[in-house]
Parts: sequence; C-alpha cells; structure tokens
Amino acid sequence: MRDLEELKARVREFVAERDWDRFHSPKNLAMALSVEASELVELFQWLTEEESAKLDDVQRGRVSEELADVLWFLVRLSDRLDIDLLQAAARKLAANAQKYPADQVRGQAKKYSDY
Amino acid sequence: MRDLEELKARVREFVAERDWDRFHSPKNLAMALSVEASELVELFQWLTEEESAKLDDVQRGRVSEELADVLWFLVRLSDRLDIDLLQAAARKLAANAQKYPADQVRGQAKKYSDY
Amino acid sequence: MRDLEELKARVREFVAERDWDRFHSPKNLAMALSVEASELVELFQWLTEEESAKLDDVQRGRVSEELADVLWFLVRLSDRLDIDLLQAAARKLAANAQKYPADQVRGQAKKYSDY
Amino acid sequence: MRDLEELKARVREFVAERDWDRFHSPKNLAMALSVEASELVELFQWLTEEESAKLDDVQRGRVSEELADVLWFLVRLSDRLDIDLLQAAARKLAANAQKYPADQVRGQAKKYSDY
Repeated sequence: MRDLEELKARVREFVAERDWDRFHSPKNLAMALSVEASELVELFQWLTEEESAKLDDVQRGRVSEELADVLWFLVRLSDRLDIDLLQAAARKLAANAQKYPADQVRGQAKKYSDY
Repeated sequence: MRDLEELKARVREFVAERDWDRFHSPKNLAMALSVEASELVELFQWLTEEESAKLDDVQRGRVSEELADVLWFLVRLSDRLDIDLLQAAARKLAANAQKYPADQVRGQAKKYSDY
Repeated sequence: MRDLEELKARVREFVAERDWDRFHSPKNLAMALSVEASELVELFQWLTEEESAKLDDVQRGRVSEELADVLWFLVRLSDRLDIDLLQAAARKLAANAQKYPADQVRGQAKKYSDY
Repeated sequence: MRDLEELKARVREFVAERDWDRFHSPKNLAMALSVEASELVELFQWLTEEESAKLDDVQRGRVSEELADVLWFLVRLSDRLDIDLLQAAARKLAANAQKYPADQVRGQAKKYSDY
C-alpha cells in the first residue's frame, strides 16, 4: 500500500464489488467509525497506562487491526464527502499551533483537555 | 502535507514542543481518538441519512475538522506503538476480502454488521 | 429488581465477589461505559431509522442486553463516585427546561444538536 | 425524582412539549447516548487512574451532568422500545453470574475483557 490515495481507491473498489454503497451514508459511516474506535478502546480499558505501553505481540496485532478498521472508515467517509484528509490535517495543525502556543501550554494537560 | 509520514513527523514535533508526551500513553490516546470519533458522530446524530449526504459548507467544514482530529490521534497512536498504518490497512483489506467474498455478501448488510 | 438502589447493591456485591474493584477506577469505568454504548450503536449502524423502530425479537433482545450493560456501568460509576443518579437527572431536567424553552425550540433539531 | 418510572414520564413529557419525537428514532437515540458517554470519557482522558478517583467539586459536578445525560438517553431509548431497564439489568446480572463464576475469575481482568 503506497499511500492514502491508493487505500481510498482500493476501499472504494471493495465496497463497489459488494454493492455496499447503499449502506454508506455519511451518517452510517460516522457511526461505524466510532464503533471501531470503541473496539480499540476496549483493548485498553482494563490495562494500566504502563501496561498499555508494553503490549505483547498478540495485543499489538489486535490493536493494529482496530487501527486499520478506523482508518478504513476514515478514508471511506472522507471519500464519500470529497474531503482531503491530509489537507484537513494540515489546516488543523496550523489552527492548533495558534490555539495552543507551545510556550504557554507546555506540560499542561488541562489547557488541552477540550482538544 | 505530502503523506502520512510527514504528518506523523509533524504531530510528533507538535507534541514534543508542548511536552505532552507525558499524557500520551496508548490507553489515553485510544480514549482521545474515540472522543474525537464521537464529536464526528454528534454532527450527524439528528440528521437523516439523506441530509448527511447533502451537507452545506459550514457542516462540511466541521466534519472536515473532526476527521482531522481523528486522523491526528490515529497517526499519533500508531507512531507511539510503532505500527505502520498503511501496512495494517493492506493486511485488513486482504483479510476482509476472504471474510466477505463479494459473490456471497453482495448487497447484504447483516453479513457485515459485525465488521 | 426493585429499583436503582437494589441494582447498585447487587452490582457492588457482584464486583466484590470477583475482586474486580481493583480495575474499577472511574477512568476505566467511563471507558467501559462508552464501549458498551458503542456496542449498542453497532446494532443500529446499518439499519435505516425506520428499521430501527421495527426491531424483531432477536434484535430487541440484543438491544435489551446492551442497555443493561450501559446501565450496569452507569450505576457502578455513580456508586464509585457517590453520585445520586436520579438527583443528577432531576437537576439536568431543570437546567434543560431553562436552556431549551419549549416555545422557542419546538420541532427544531439544530437548537439542541449540542445537547 | 422518585424512581426510573418517574424519570421516564418526565423525559417523555419534556420531549413531547418540544415536538422532538420526530428526531428520536432508536437509531438516533443510540447515537446520542454514545456521544454523551464520550463526553463523560473526555473528562477522564488525561487524568491518571488515581486522579480520576480524587475529583474536585468542579470535576465531580461535570461528571454528574454527563452521567445524567447518559441516563436521560438510556431511559428515553428504553421507553421508545418498551424495554424495562431494571428487568433487563436483572437478567444480565444472572447471565453474568454464570458466565463469570466468582471462584474462577477472581481478580482476573482478562477473563472479563470482553464483558
């Protein structure tokens, strides 16, 4: 897999072959994305923060799968709405750099709790 | 923004400048990712599926921001765990092609409701 | 089951018998609650709104189980933090009555999209 | 507020006065419930587990509000589907007592990670 563009094209093809476009309203895709995000959370919910940083291979494999599922729906939804993910990310980074000036928020969680 | 690699590097730099690594256990990042996914869902929750496919510019802008936030934490978490997102996506696509053979699941939502 | 108080006591006993208190920090319980909420969402994600209002017995049984799981963690977390759920609900109803005056928001989704 | 029955009746009245039934398909209510659950998670995401057990009054007030919001939609959705929450909870407790025998799962998180 070369890049997000290739992934977008392959997901689109995968969906078309199964005639699943009919289920893929942006509303439904947003729901599905959040469900996948929660499956990721489920893997961490009873681990301590320390344990979450020292996953064994089985756990890492499962996390990897859930990350892939989230990316799948993220790419699918952005394709459906014709939104360029990398461009959106660049804009957000610039906005956040202004919202959270490095010298003011340094090491403070509270200041970015709403982030 | 060229690609996911550049985004990963820029997010890493953004976090380092603010000394936010201390908050970024995989457990916390998974939580934050799911919170951003829900902020995306919130934009769609009272819309019909039809309305969700015809967003105005303001709505599209907000969706775009939330997609960027999800991608931000997705990239951050995968960096923290040293997981290659595109490789994980490629593996998942291959697994799903086997799990949901196009000729058997065509147009059936139920068959992939657990997906 | 008579009321929330009885449920709270029985959940507490259930947890104590299994020595699961150690995992039940408020942080972890909030995560678990959101995961259960997403398992509920998963049951509806590919249904139309109309279909979601006409569940068959199997679907209704599964929804019922997920609602019970959400309630379980809601009761558990409120017990852990010594918060009275019904009192909190009464306060919120009063606050919302002020925030969303019936004669002004009547039939308007947008006005309560942030609710 | 006496009990869940009274809350159910008052939520129903609140919704009717605002003509919001039209937005309350089970699908939409499940989405809204999960969004509220994530607003709860957001309050905890950058706290350590220890900090999450020692909330100050402001934090406790916000948690209390989010718990109320989750309960609001839980009661609303169960009313919409005519599901008795306490009965569902009693059934689930009985099922879990069988699924997780106290003497076998004592103190083990993994065994109930899928719970």
